[in-house]
Amino acid sequence: MRNKVVIIGGGAAGPKTAAKLRRENPNIKIELYTQEEIISYSACGLPYFIGNVIKDVNNLIVRTPEDFRKQNIEIYTKSRCLNVNTEKQTLLIEDLSSGNKYEVGYDILVLATGAIPVIPDIKNTELKNIFTLRTVQDSINIKNKIKESSRAVLLGGGYISVEMLEALVNNNMKVTLIEKNPYILKMFDEDFSQMITDYIINRNPGQITIMTNENVTEFKGNDKGEVTQVITESGKVIDTDIVILGTGVRPNTDFLKDSGIEFGINNSIHVSQTMQTSKFNIYAAGDCTDNFNLVTNRYFWSPMGSTANKEGRCAAINIAGGHCYFDGVMNSTTTKFFNYTISMIGISYKDAIKYGFQPEYATVTKRDKAGYMPNPGMVTLKLIADRNTHFILGIQGIGEGNVNQRINAVIPAILGKTKLKTFMNLDLPYSPEHSPAIDPVLNAAQIICNKINN
Amino acid sequence: MRNKVVIIGGGAAGPKTAAKLRRENPNIKIELYTQEEIISYSACGLPYFIGNVIKDVNNLIVRTPEDFRKQNIEIYTKSRCLNVNTEKQTLLIEDLSSGNKYEVGYDILVLATGAIPVIPDIKNTELKNIFTLRTVQDSINIKNKIKESSRAVLLGGGYISVEMLEALVNNNMKVTLIEKNPYILKMFDEDFSQMITDYIINRNPGQITIMTNENVTEFKGNDKGEVTQVITESGKVIDTDIVILGTGVRPNTDFLKDSGIEFGINNSIHVSQTMQTSKFNIYAAGDCTDNFNLVTNRYFWSPMGSTANKEGRCAAINIAGGHCYFDGVMNSTTTKFFNYTISMIGISYKDAIKYGFQPEYATVTKRDKAGYMPNPGMVTLKLIADRNTHFILGIQGIGEGNVNQRINAVIPAILGKTKLKTFMNLDLPYSPEHSPAIDPVLNAAQIICNKINN
Repeated sequence: MRNKVVIIGGGAAGPKTAAKLRRENPNIKIELYTQEEIISYSACGLPYFIGNVIKDVNNLIVRTPEDFRKQNIEIYTKSRCLNVNTEKQTLLIEDLSSGNKYEVGYDILVLATGAIPVIPDIKNTELKNIFTLRTVQDSINIKNKIKESSRAVLLGGGYISVEMLEALVNNNMKVTLIEKNPYILKMFDEDFSQMITDYIINRNPGQITIMTNENVTEFKGNDKGEVTQVITESGKVIDTDIVILGTGVRPNTDFLKDSGIEFGINNSIHVSQTMQTSKFNIYAAGDCTDNFNLVTNRYFWSPMGSTANKEGRCAAINIAGGHCYFDGVMNSTTTKFFNYTISMIGISYKDAIKYGFQPEYATVTKRDKAGYMPNPGMVTLKLIADRNTHFILGIQGIGEGNVNQRINAVIPAILGKTKLKTFMNLDLPYSPEHSPAIDPVLNAAQIICNKINN
Repeated sequence: MRNKVVIIGGGAAGPKTAAKLRRENPNIKIELYTQEEIISYSACGLPYFIGNVIKDVNNLIVRTPEDFRKQNIEIYTKSRCLNVNTEKQTLLIEDLSSGNKYEVGYDILVLATGAIPVIPDIKNTELKNIFTLRTVQDSINIKNKIKESSRAVLLGGGYISVEMLEALVNNNMKVTLIEKNPYILKMFDEDFSQMITDYIINRNPGQITIMTNENVTEFKGNDKGEVTQVITESGKVIDTDIVILGTGVRPNTDFLKDSGIEFGINNSIHVSQTMQTSKFNIYAAGDCTDNFNLVTNRYFWSPMGSTANKEGRCAAINIAGGHCYFDGVMNSTTTKFFNYTISMIGISYKDAIKYGFQPEYATVTKRDKAGYMPNPGMVTLKLIADRNTHFILGIQGIGEGNVNQRINAVIPAILGKTKLKTFMNLDLPYSPEHSPAIDPVLNAAQIICNKINN
């Protein structure tokens, strides 16, 4: 029976599943429940709204509930799923406006509840003006507070914090980023993290402070209950008007803990390549699921907006009776700090050792055009390969030049297990405006080959 | 015996072979003979010197004879090879300054004589101010003439002509491009050629005329023997001060016709994956060799500066006793017309049919950033795949956006025979500044999948 498909979650994967399923099957009944008021928006765009790059937050919305209703997809906003009964094939839904609870039956269920912020174990996180950034409402709240603020603290040194650094600089704020690890962006090797840190600091001298190896132990507030100070274990006291917690996210799956649905790493929902959970008629997609890592060949958790879209599409095709397989991911990430691209694919050198590979690497810093062309951008690439198999394990790339033109050439090579010796002669198109005669990424491959053979 | 290596040719492949071989073996004797005065320069950069993008032509020179001599590599300029005696292992060299001829012995010979322009069968090609563009001296001659000219005719509609269009526009000239085929850039499908033509014309209205389906039959000159008119078969008369012949090139191999060395297509030198010719101690690299096409699995001829560098490096490694294989190419090409990228990998839709594939394609025009980000560049991609195997056969890309970031993701996927269904879920890194959540190239793959499955 595939008469009624119920989707839980309104971020990226849920709406994508709904829209694709409707295209595949004009008649199937589709209902989508989300605890938020707004559905189908790009959470990745929120820092750019805060940074005034995007003026109207509505531009981040891909489809409105009205758009969906026109396609005969029923949308229930402010409707939270409290639990799933897989025997009865029912959900318990709470209407957050009225507080009413009611049961909803399904033939096929799609879990797309995304991820939620991790609130760190720090004293007084309940103070006013301490924010997380996950929803459109979060971004509106932060933006309103920024208007009357001049100092901010960012907790955590991940991608979101780098994007928020730019947003806060755009608002002329002084920012302190506090990271408990020895360096920020810890998926990178330390050398690359250091270069990124140097770039950030040097671009905005005096405006941005990056503190590493610092544990925040307490927030202090004024008599209105507003945060005013951040206190670290080493005794530092940072005055601030606003705190943004970029201290990670976790799968939004607590409501499933008694459902019998199999969990993967970090309480994510374990899914097969068809996006099915351990229950054949329950699918899951997006940030709430686990992911197969095509480099390490292990399951891990890698919540990404692009993956959510692909997984939602894949789930929809299979629900409609088609055949789609989502093989896995490579933990591919990228962002920009102003004009400076920061990208990472696969695993770092340090993680390659951790996973038992015998990694070798090459780092090159090159122009992204022929040496004689004016206005080149610089790119610095660190390519990592395994000495045993000669397979590529990952690449890190930074710079003001066209980094991702190089990065993207590596991704299918990792997938296809292309050996370094073959990769280094790859026929990337050349013209003086687009690359040196030997592209920097091929140059890096040549250097590793030389190292491995000697 | 590998005591003495003689290299013929001083463009890209020859000097690359010499330099890499010296790094691999500090003691081996290396001599390089070239008929030109200047060696080791980027011919691909010549249009940018003519267009005043590069002020000093010396910037195009990678290494001078003096640089080589410091590495104990003997360079003989203005020294043309007249023939090769593979039995005696000798060359006949003509000193172009004195006219003297002398024999040179070799243990290992490297043929890297490149390509030379095809002079079309048109009346009066010997008139003054009719140029080809292949050497540094050609570019100096053209640039000198341009200074006193206002009108130019470009014959032939290949990449060089597109690059020369920009160079001539930079010199405020009125340009007429004449192509005998129904459309320019004939490696592209006609729809893409038409879009490129429209872009070129619209960017410079009134300054550039593109005539297709026109055969030039005659040049006419004044009493000083200078070209003044171009006459076409259909009766058109175009007044001009200068003509540049972009009517193709051919392998520079006439001197080898009695050598017994096996020729490939178009009188190119047939080489193995080790860059060896049919004589085990004679290698060849660069534009004078044939190439294995990794898409059609046939030998063809694809003279490219990037390939020349890779082949020269490969030959050097093998000569030095190492093991390097150059598997082949995909006819990858790219250039820019001002800010507009033009790229092509693999084969076109029309060629796919010609080669017996059952091609399907998808054309997408998309922003190169998330929809809500300001200042996106547009990219138009045409992805081509085979209905039988689901392998990708080629991609054409144009636009002011970051075309090659997408193009480069396809190349290793062609090499690795990645099926479309796998490719469409490739984990290309996503951030709003770098791409839509589903990259345009993956979107194109999804569309072909839909077409093939329906």
